[in-house]
Amino acid sequence: MSRKSLRHTAKGEHTRQRIVEAADRLIGWRGVTRVTLEDVRAEANVSSSQIYHYFADKQALIAAVVDRQDSLSSAGESMLGAFESADALRSWGRRLVEGQRESQSAGGCPIVTLGTGLMDLDVDTVGQLARIFRRCEDEIRAGYRTMHANGELPPSADPDALATMTLATAIGGLVLAQLNSDAQPLQLALDAMLDCLQSRQENSPKTLVPN
Amino acid sequence: MSRKSLRHTAKGEHTRQRIVEAADRLIGWRGVTRVTLEDVRAEANVSSSQIYHYFADKQALIAAVVDRQDSLSSAGESMLGAFESADALRSWGRRLVEGQRESQSAGGCPIVTLGTGLMDLDVDTVGQLARIFRRCEDEIRAGYRTMHANGELPPSADPDALATMTLATAIGGLVLAQLNSDAQPLQLALDAMLDCLQSRQENSPKTLVPN
Repeated sequence: MSRKSLRHTAKGEHTRQRIVEAADRLIGWRGVTRVTLEDVRAEANVSSSQIYHYFADKQALIAAVVDRQDSLSSAGESMLGAFESADALRSWGRRLVEGQRESQSAGGCPIVTLGTGLMDLDVDTVGQLARIFRRCEDEIRAGYRTMHANGELPPSADPDALATMTLATAIGGLVLAQLNSDAQPLQLALDAMLDCLQSRQENSPKTLVPN
Repeated sequence: MSRKSLRHTAKGEHTRQRIVEAADRLIGWRGVTRVTLEDVRAEANVSSSQIYHYFADKQALIAAVVDRQDSLSSAGESMLGAFESADALRSWGRRLVEGQRESQSAGGCPIVTLGTGLMDLDVDTVGQLARIFRRCEDEIRAGYRTMHANGELPPSADPDALATMTLATAIGGLVLAQLNSDAQPLQLALDAMLDCLQSRQENSPKTLVPN
């Protein structure tokens, strides 16, 4: 259900919407942490008193942005576009990457930004988190390189790309598990990924995964 | 570099470490939002004045937890365990899922929790984010089911599991892109995933991905 207040006049509702849409755009571009109420005020071209009339603080505004995304997606508006062929899949992947590039990877998909970007952490800490994940990836990559050298991955497989994929799938699965308070999405995602890897391995000299 | 203060005596440093370790454990179990300084105080068995002596606020404590993880991982301590065979891969997946289950999916991997769980959002908003991602997954699933029905995925493929995997890989790729301010991890992860899918499709009647 929308938490949109019904107290506002039509004109007031219009102003409120304009603010929420401006916040949505800015968060998509820059990420949640880098957007201030002042940025949103300028982008929406409203006064400070108008912003604070509708939103007590940044958290309230962010909740309204999520609310907007929730309404849009429940109204049956396609978020991903057609997804029914390999071409469509590749083109979805391309759009996601391009969106990320355009925002200098600070923003991009607003829901992922909202679900993951609310870090009131300083830049140092973000850098540390990035480094820790890189070390995880290094471990995975070293394993895949060994498997590749041992012939347990087909010669055409790229151990480096598989390592990034594996780490990403694990992180995404953990995000979904935490948001849903349920480990099942993590399990499904990892199992499907390992099954896909296994099918790559089936053309390989040694069968990798005992069944 | 560790931001650990060097001003403390050996005993003080020991107390500080005990607090950070307690916070690390609690965040892993419950997630960042659900852990208060009071919880950490009780878990570490120290006084309030001791906590506030070392950490001005929760953010400072969280930064120290990240610092600890950074030091542990840079010291070459394996985070993932052996990763050099299919068995090791499956067992890593199993441990990740079990950790998630044990924490009722609130905590689990502390770095993912830190990188993604810092949501000062209310429970409603978390529920909305989960719903929005479910709708994305629904769209992906519908596409994969069509492809499955059209023979563009092999009969043994599970479109539902592939949809969860695809969403998870995209989310994880976006998290890595944002943490690194670089779209490349997203691109690598998505490309590798689509390549893996393609190799599943190669045994399928119709070739899915034109080369």
